Amino acid sequence: MNEIFSRELVASVMEELKIASLARATIGQMLMLASTLEAKTGIPFIRMDQGVPGLEPCKIGMEAEKIALDQGVASKYPAAEGVLELKEQSARFVKAFLNIDMAPLSCLPTTGSVSGSFGSFLICSQLNKKRDTILFIDPGFPIQKAQLVMLGIKYKSFDVFEYRGEKLKEKLEQLLSEGNIAAIVYSSPNNPTWITFTEEELSILGEMATKHDAIILEDLAYFGMDFRADYSQPFVAPYVPTIARYTDNYILFISGSKIYSYAGQRVAVACVSDKLYNRTYAGLASHYSNAGHFGITFTNAVMYMITSGVTHSVQLGLAAMFKASCDGNYNFVDSTKEYGIRAEKMKAIFHKYGFHVVYDKDIDREIGDGFFFTIGYKEMNCGELVSEFAHYGISSISLSTTGSEREGVRACTSRMTDEMFDILDERLRLFSEAH
Amino acid sequence: MNEIFSRELVASVMEELKIASLARATIGQMLMLASTLEAKTGIPFIRMDQGVPGLEPCKIGMEAEKIALDQGVASKYPAAEGVLELKEQSARFVKAFLNIDMAPLSCLPTTGSVSGSFGSFLICSQLNKKRDTILFIDPGFPIQKAQLVMLGIKYKSFDVFEYRGEKLKEKLEQLLSEGNIAAIVYSSPNNPTWITFTEEELSILGEMATKHDAIILEDLAYFGMDFRADYSQPFVAPYVPTIARYTDNYILFISGSKIYSYAGQRVAVACVSDKLYNRTYAGLASHYSNAGHFGITFTNAVMYMITSGVTHSVQLGLAAMFKASCDGNYNFVDSTKEYGIRAEKMKAIFHKYGFHVVYDKDIDREIGDGFFFTIGYKEMNCGELVSEFAHYGISSISLSTTGSEREGVRACTSRMTDEMFDILDERLRLFSEAH
Repeated sequence: MNEIFSRELVASVMEELKIASLARATIGQMLMLASTLEAKTGIPFIRMDQGVPGLEPCKIGMEAEKIALDQGVASKYPAAEGVLELKEQSARFVKAFLNIDMAPLSCLPTTGSVSGSFGSFLICSQLNKKRDTILFIDPGFPIQKAQLVMLGIKYKSFDVFEYRGEKLKEKLEQLLSEGNIAAIVYSSPNNPTWITFTEEELSILGEMATKHDAIILEDLAYFGMDFRADYSQPFVAPYVPTIARYTDNYILFISGSKIYSYAGQRVAVACVSDKLYNRTYAGLASHYSNAGHFGITFTNAVMYMITSGVTHSVQLGLAAMFKASCDGNYNFVDSTKEYGIRAEKMKAIFHKYGFHVVYDKDIDREIGDGFFFTIGYKEMNCGELVSEFAHYGISSISLSTTGSEREGVRACTSRMTDEMFDILDERLRLFSEAH
Repeated sequence: MNEIFSRELVASVMEELKIASLARATIGQMLMLASTLEAKTGIPFIRMDQGVPGLEPCKIGMEAEKIALDQGVASKYPAAEGVLELKEQSARFVKAFLNIDMAPLSCLPTTGSVSGSFGSFLICSQLNKKRDTILFIDPGFPIQKAQLVMLGIKYKSFDVFEYRGEKLKEKLEQLLSEGNIAAIVYSSPNNPTWITFTEEELSILGEMATKHDAIILEDLAYFGMDFRADYSQPFVAPYVPTIARYTDNYILFISGSKIYSYAGQRVAVACVSDKLYNRTYAGLASHYSNAGHFGITFTNAVMYMITSGVTHSVQLGLAAMFKASCDGNYNFVDSTKEYGIRAEKMKAIFHKYGFHVVYDKDIDREIGDGFFFTIGYKEMNCGELVSEFAHYGISSISLSTTGSEREGVRACTSRMTDEMFDILDERLRLFSEAH
């Protein structure tokens, strides 16, 4: 056999780690399998599994954190609404790169976008008793569904593959007309597929959100990383596509994790549209015995109650990075272009050996090269492909764990290094010879 | 009139800030009132309101954070179970100052104890459908009740004033025998009253928790700050009193906020008893479709889903501070004794003008001097006292907002400075002459 890791070895490690099936393996299980096999054999995996930044953290943030520590912020509770400097720079960032006007008050620091989505799911489910369900435009990020399981909030989802462009309208109309959808979640560029909604699709989403009074939760984790356009210049078109141009019912999640390679410090901002921020809801008033004001309730009665604010020095770190980007002193788009370069090279190798990109187009346009892409092989299903890849020393995530109805895996480019491209080529050659 | 701030001025600022009643004012409202009056008049308040650290943050943590940043942790997601170094030093700290053996695995970093209690309430309410209520031994911390409101979890509470010592047993027996209590929460030393449970009371609490299978959530925010004993020596008796000696059903919350004046960085550990960590619950298994293992569910399906881990550099900061304390290189008890000195001086001034400490004894022993104490005046009720104090330039928190049935206010010593003692004396003299 040409496999890198034998059937027996993989099976025995799976048993040791109590992994019943690689098709349904969580990211955590895939990480453990790869690192255990690496440790046992000394043979490195090609780690396409977890979406961790593979670049150095942005120094501007680190230096600002150190200055903040020296100024003594460590002893001072950050304000519930966040540090003013970060709120102001967030609103400026939104203006500079989205061309959207937003009050600093409406930009709320969160302990990563994970915490932002957690609080948003919770408050959105409390606005109106009839609207008790969150709608996922899948494929998506499994953690968000796990948050709803934890909170006992219902959700629905559909795979967007068959509903791109105009077809999206019909599908949304059908789902939203039931009247039970509180909020709609998606990421764009998308984790795991890297598809990006077109302006037409965003316009449909906005129209439907307004018509059916649902709130769009737009996860912009990979902000500006659709390298097919150049979004790198502050206050200059083209601007990053966003739902904010098409409805007032939205919360945007902008995270420092990927654009500044700052995932370890857990910081993001949840940017609530000014209109939504100032709206009042009877459901909130009755749940919290308050005036039902969305923004104040979200800030003081929801987000503040989860962590009592976001780490003080880190807020000042993110503020400094946003400021540098708005001032034109730090180009976060250029700094992450490396991921696009890796994706292009990896896809070329995959194509060479008969693999295909599963989510390959934004309607009529080839998807960009970035942080993630999806890979399929002949008629192999998700489980077979993840499992076979593991035997050839390549770790990946099954698309079936992301709400996709397609067969394939998610490949992450972030941990790919120069010396691994030849190894990837060799392993895929062996793979294709065996299959 | 001898008041510092006139009736008209206070009333107009209250109207401006939409504060309907000082008796029911939240901490946030009291902060705003005090700072607005200070800004309008230039006259400083004696700030007895918010429990913010009034000391410099521990340098050992800050330096460790800077080193961690230089090592590049900012780009790396912290592991779901927390950074190993912090887990190990937490277990060591628990051994050094509580004399309790605990596996590092059972010590989970959280984004402050606020986040620890949030996740704990959630998981405790999911163990068993019949046990759907959290019991507060009040007076307590209003944020914790707000967390339950947000999550829609029921709670009960009673004021412990009348139930000290043996009487606690009867009260708990009565409440727990209903079979609906999932967990019991308290802080000791207590916020707001600074009462501290005796070993006899902890033994009763432990016995009742075991008998009725309720989980004790023990908030040790003011760890070691009962200065009536010297808890400052690692691995040497006397050890800080804790429920961990009397039952296996517990989670301890140990925070860096007060003992290291590190509140701004939002870091704490939730220490789960090893037995509870390894217990399985049918309720968890059905809710999360997993094996129902408490520790794994708490770590991966609850806490990880709230923030995806705790800020990386800050975990290493807390690890360094715990290590220094265990090594005998940083005495966190001595460093916070200043609060006790301030409390003693403040109480003496209050006594001089006819005020009394409301929660004055731990059964037969006078309560210690520390971060908080409670103050009453003649027959004045909570609202009158908070309001009158405000007119004399003293901000405080009404005991009625803490679940207390007594009349009085909470006084916090942390922001008291040397030059304010004479001013306090003068203002209380004016107050007592007028009342």
